[in-house]
Amino acid sequence: MRDVSIIGTGMMRFGKHLDKGLVELAWPVVKEAIAEAGVEKEDIGIAFCGTVGSAGIMAGQSILKTLGMTGIPIANVEGACSSSGIAVRLAWMAIRAGECDVALAIGADKMNRTGPRHAPDHGEDWDMAYGLAMHGLYAMRARRYMNDYGITEEQLSSVSVKAHKLGAKNEFAHIQKEVTLEEVMTSRMIADPLRLWHCCPVSDGAAAVVLAADDVAKKVCDKPVKIVASVQHSGKYMTGFRDMTMPEVTQRTAKEIYEKAGLGPEDLDLVEFHDAFTINELMYADAIGLSKPGEGVRLLEEGESTVGGRIPINPSGGLLSRGHPIGPTGAAQIVEVTRQLQGRGGARQVEGAKVGLTHVTGGGVSGLDHGACTMHVLAV
Amino acid sequence: MRDVSIIGTGMMRFGKHLDKGLVELAWPVVKEAIAEAGVEKEDIGIAFCGTVGSAGIMAGQSILKTLGMTGIPIANVEGACSSSGIAVRLAWMAIRAGECDVALAIGADKMNRTGPRHAPDHGEDWDMAYGLAMHGLYAMRARRYMNDYGITEEQLSSVSVKAHKLGAKNEFAHIQKEVTLEEVMTSRMIADPLRLWHCCPVSDGAAAVVLAADDVAKKVCDKPVKIVASVQHSGKYMTGFRDMTMPEVTQRTAKEIYEKAGLGPEDLDLVEFHDAFTINELMYADAIGLSKPGEGVRLLEEGESTVGGRIPINPSGGLLSRGHPIGPTGAAQIVEVTRQLQGRGGARQVEGAKVGLTHVTGGGVSGLDHGACTMHVLAV
Repeated sequence: MRDVSIIGTGMMRFGKHLDKGLVELAWPVVKEAIAEAGVEKEDIGIAFCGTVGSAGIMAGQSILKTLGMTGIPIANVEGACSSSGIAVRLAWMAIRAGECDVALAIGADKMNRTGPRHAPDHGEDWDMAYGLAMHGLYAMRARRYMNDYGITEEQLSSVSVKAHKLGAKNEFAHIQKEVTLEEVMTSRMIADPLRLWHCCPVSDGAAAVVLAADDVAKKVCDKPVKIVASVQHSGKYMTGFRDMTMPEVTQRTAKEIYEKAGLGPEDLDLVEFHDAFTINELMYADAIGLSKPGEGVRLLEEGESTVGGRIPINPSGGLLSRGHPIGPTGAAQIVEVTRQLQGRGGARQVEGAKVGLTHVTGGGVSGLDHGACTMHVLAV
Repeated sequence: MRDVSIIGTGMMRFGKHLDKGLVELAWPVVKEAIAEAGVEKEDIGIAFCGTVGSAGIMAGQSILKTLGMTGIPIANVEGACSSSGIAVRLAWMAIRAGECDVALAIGADKMNRTGPRHAPDHGEDWDMAYGLAMHGLYAMRARRYMNDYGITEEQLSSVSVKAHKLGAKNEFAHIQKEVTLEEVMTSRMIADPLRLWHCCPVSDGAAAVVLAADDVAKKVCDKPVKIVASVQHSGKYMTGFRDMTMPEVTQRTAKEIYEKAGLGPEDLDLVEFHDAFTINELMYADAIGLSKPGEGVRLLEEGESTVGGRIPINPSGGLLSRGHPIGPTGAAQIVEVTRQLQGRGGARQVEGAKVGLTHVTGGGVSGLDHGACTMHVLAV
């Protein structure tokens, strides 16, 4: 089976883009990724567009038509927050299957105007009806985690301080400002204990990645970033958790990707993971094996999870700061890790990074059923 | 690269299923396909669900949870009318890429309650605003085709008579009754010259296919149906046509699939193609090379395109009679051709059929941009 590398990336500043449609947001990002890849648009053999469909159907076709990229197979892919993580994975799979040498993965969504289609139309969704939207769900997980491991609101709030400190250095972040612990702790309550600054913003945006078979990648790209492994799982439990403090779908996906990549959490130089709420950073650090259960907070307090520390978590600022337009989030993580591994991290560069991991996970409340978790290990 | 075969199929009667949600429609069909395949549900390594998302996000996860099929990678795929054609193609690709030995493709949508999300939210869609929905678009194509090739309304109407004659023998058809030429020609005008019986019904439904690598297929299945070739294209022109009488995206997809399959239209024993309106049967017969341009009507008039004729077109009754729930249409075609090739066509059996072709094409008006056309050649 052929190895596959990333050879081009496109990224924009996530934010509230009420003045632009989905196509207007996405096409410049796709153009950037192709230009950076050093290939012609005619070299792209297949395209996948990860979107929750906030802007209607045939999103990928609409975006690519603007660039004159017609004729090729295009599939729109939906897996809640995992959508463009899956799009990258399918692009990787298409190259491995011999369908083409160069493939494109896009993520694109507009949350601020049309909103995500959150509520599936099948049966009664009692959890949602009683308020168990994502905020409520993660608030319950947070309370349980804080209780079980003795985590204080101050500690939880410090996740947000770190995320925004890094995001302030990221020109693509939706929120490019630092926040103080006091600002976080006195911000408006959303779902106790999660306050406003504990939650990711509602963002619009797009991101794109060009992938190539290794033999092509080496010809056109100075520093291709290899996809060492790509794994997707869905949850085995309705909420994605067996107990409320341990996201089993992430834990299981991590286990498989470490096996496939032939490495462990100790070999990673940076990770971009799915911190839609502050509690996520602590829980996912545990689930991905960066810390023992309940000890994710130590990485934070000992400065290990920031740039300059042992294992920087979300140098981009993560979902909390860079933003979370749902569809493009997974692709944006892959753009960030790719550029970091190429030494293009700017003011937030993780020095000497050779191996990075991305993680997106979506769904996992009853209305969105058993979820979708996608992880990639990238390396130079 | 490994060859891939279809080993299981699941199908339901398409129709107006207001009393059931998407999951309730789809899970029995998936269960049937897996049971028929002779594998355990635990053998399924990846699943794709083709849907335009009429029932919300995470459709595949929702359906499979009901069957206890959790944990595996699941991707929801959208390509307008081509959605589950693409889902089958990606399942085929995943097996070829070595991701797993057995894969599942589902198509599922509910058109009658929630309706398709037809209008992309980007820019002004002037064509749609001035009435160029699918009916209007195909009406214009019909008028042009009738003018250029001297086709009468009576001839066009006879397409519907044939489709419903076949559909009346199909227990899965939405409309299981024959119609007379007079009924067709006096039915309510929808978009001149297309009357009510010239248009497919608005359907809900689901269909499913289980695919396996050939070595596995031979072990578990008495009569696996080989996927000889699978091709997807998008259009190069906004409406999917270069001239209004020739769907170039279908023509181009057909050209490639004949090359890849190493055969031509003369080698086909049956086809299931995308007859959303009567005019489609004439145009697509031309585009797929079953007839010379303008001569599709001869197949009809000479009885060649019905069961018992030289090249039966849509023995299932096609979209006109079986129905067109959008998402599942492509998978339903593959179910029909698979069962025909296995000799399970019942009262509509195409005797001795060895090679069949399926064709779905979606989008291709400006709001849905340059479309998606997916074709498969199947053989025993």
